[in-house]
Amino acid sequence: MNSHAAYTFLDLVGTFAFAISGAVAARQKRLDLFGIASIAFMVACGGGIVRDVCIGAVPPAGLSNWPYLATSLAACGVTLLAYPQVRRLRQPVLLFDAIGLGLFAVAGAQKSLAYGHSAELAILLGIVSAVGGGVMRDVLLSRVPAILEREIYASAALLGAAVQVGFTYAGWTAWWAPWLATLACVVLRLASLYFGWRLPAFAGRRECLARDGQ
Amino acid sequence: MNSHAAYTFLDLVGTFAFAISGAVAARQKRLDLFGIASIAFMVACGGGIVRDVCIGAVPPAGLSNWPYLATSLAACGVTLLAYPQVRRLRQPVLLFDAIGLGLFAVAGAQKSLAYGHSAELAILLGIVSAVGGGVMRDVLLSRVPAILEREIYASAALLGAAVQVGFTYAGWTAWWAPWLATLACVVLRLASLYFGWRLPAFAGRRECLARDGQ
Amino acid sequence: MNSHAAYTFLDLVGTFAFAISGAVAARQKRLDLFGIASIAFMVACGGGIVRDVCIGAVPPAGLSNWPYLATSLAACGVTLLAYPQVRRLRQPVLLFDAIGLGLFAVAGAQKSLAYGHSAELAILLGIVSAVGGGVMRDVLLSRVPAILEREIYASAALLGAAVQVGFTYAGWTAWWAPWLATLACVVLRLASLYFGWRLPAFAGRRECLARDGQ
Repeated sequence: MNSHAAYTFLDLVGTFAFAISGAVAARQKRLDLFGIASIAFMVACGGGIVRDVCIGAVPPAGLSNWPYLATSLAACGVTLLAYPQVRRLRQPVLLFDAIGLGLFAVAGAQKSLAYGHSAELAILLGIVSAVGGGVMRDVLLSRVPAILEREIYASAALLGAAVQVGFTYAGWTAWWAPWLATLACVVLRLASLYFGWRLPAFAGRRECLARDGQ
Repeated sequence: MNSHAAYTFLDLVGTFAFAISGAVAARQKRLDLFGIASIAFMVACGGGIVRDVCIGAVPPAGLSNWPYLATSLAACGVTLLAYPQVRRLRQPVLLFDAIGLGLFAVAGAQKSLAYGHSAELAILLGIVSAVGGGVMRDVLLSRVPAILEREIYASAALLGAAVQVGFTYAGWTAWWAPWLATLACVVLRLASLYFGWRLPAFAGRRECLARDGQ
Repeated sequence: MNSHAAYTFLDLVGTFAFAISGAVAARQKRLDLFGIASIAFMVACGGGIVRDVCIGAVPPAGLSNWPYLATSLAACGVTLLAYPQVRRLRQPVLLFDAIGLGLFAVAGAQKSLAYGHSAELAILLGIVSAVGGGVMRDVLLSRVPAILEREIYASAALLGAAVQVGFTYAGWTAWWAPWLATLACVVLRLASLYFGWRLPAFAGRRECLARDGQ
């Protein structure tokens, strides 16, 4: 298996893991079959669709390449048929989710660079590719996006995308470069889960919670 | 009246029905005049705008063709001036909404095919055209989108878009083909309302509601 | 300082003011550092990104021009380092916010016209440029967008964009035209705050709040 085939394979692994997280969240909210499939597909492909629209790669790959839709639906089927098992799989799901995060961040940054755009855009769209779907899931399920609260999640995507962009600007385009960038993201994400690292928040005194209005 | 003029006319009927549903929902949330008009316009045109952005048809027709805006504002005016009557009109509004759903699903699929895209994209964007505006309405009004819960709504749009794409691939491009596809969607939607058909959901035991985190 | 430099300067002032309003709202919701920076950036640049996608100006300026990101991050830093002071600054923040509103509405309309689009599109996208970021903030923080409720905010953006489009169609393209349009928006916004002007809402009897379903 050459590098490109391996990357495509892992891209679908990431899609699968993200779709499972979407299907589980949608099932918990008691959505119907169509709702569950929609949320699963959106978590897996939503970020990439926004990225593609922003760099002018229309129609977006997530909507026009059938393997993404097929993988999402397969993840959805697995979740529904083996729900108790999937729910017990918290550790593996978090692992796959971290791998998906790293792959999507790096692939998103790489695609933006391949379209000739700047480093800043590549890093921002790498983050969007990786976390956009999860944000859409939370918005549709009417809750404040999990990634905006205190966890190293989007920050790990930022690291992966930035390392990949750095490698590309440094001229290191060997086959191992994107793998190393992906690894940086995955390791940071898993370490933060394991050690309970969090970004600082600024929970102040009670009065800070009073609404300021507009 | 030839086929194209009839289609344009019914497209505006769908816009009108969707805008009324948006205006009613916004008025119930006690939004102001501008908020009501915005939600009405977004329900009517939001899905089509996302579709156009995804197939590269910019600027989106909903934003640049004045009849859509004018029809939405007219629906908004009717809703506000005759609110008690409109509220009593539940049956006709549901009928028009079903017609709008069918027309938007079929027209959305057809437009994607006309831009040279694949069957999968056409079906997905047909659904998005038909239900996207309603999803935006629910997101803006901070509730879980109605279509993700147990009703045959997006599924009817899926049927309409799929029938239209099937006809086109089969080479059946006679004047009646889009009408038949629209009819399939409308009939499924109305039948599901009349007979109370629903998609399966998976409401499990209480423990299923516990949040999994991420 | 010539007119163009002045405009760029004030565009960044608007970005700064909008980013501060986003950072304050995110801090009140106890988001972490990354969440606060994301919301600040999105309030400042989200509307412009949607506008650029709709007129085909990809990649969007807000994502690819670093001064916007840098200004947003600076505003975020100021908010966090001097939070008690910023919170006390309600009046100046509202003033800068009004200036940002006017500048974004006029610049958004002007950019759409410069891309050769119609007056209707220019006005709609002027409004989207000015208020889109604030709507995204409210959607992400799970609340009904403030601008849809009873305040003269989006309506002021509408006025600014419409005046600018009117000037352009009338052939008044002198250096002072966009400034006058911006001023119209800012004055309307500030006057509405000072005098408590509001758009009519239609708060009816209690029964109006009952949900109609779909």
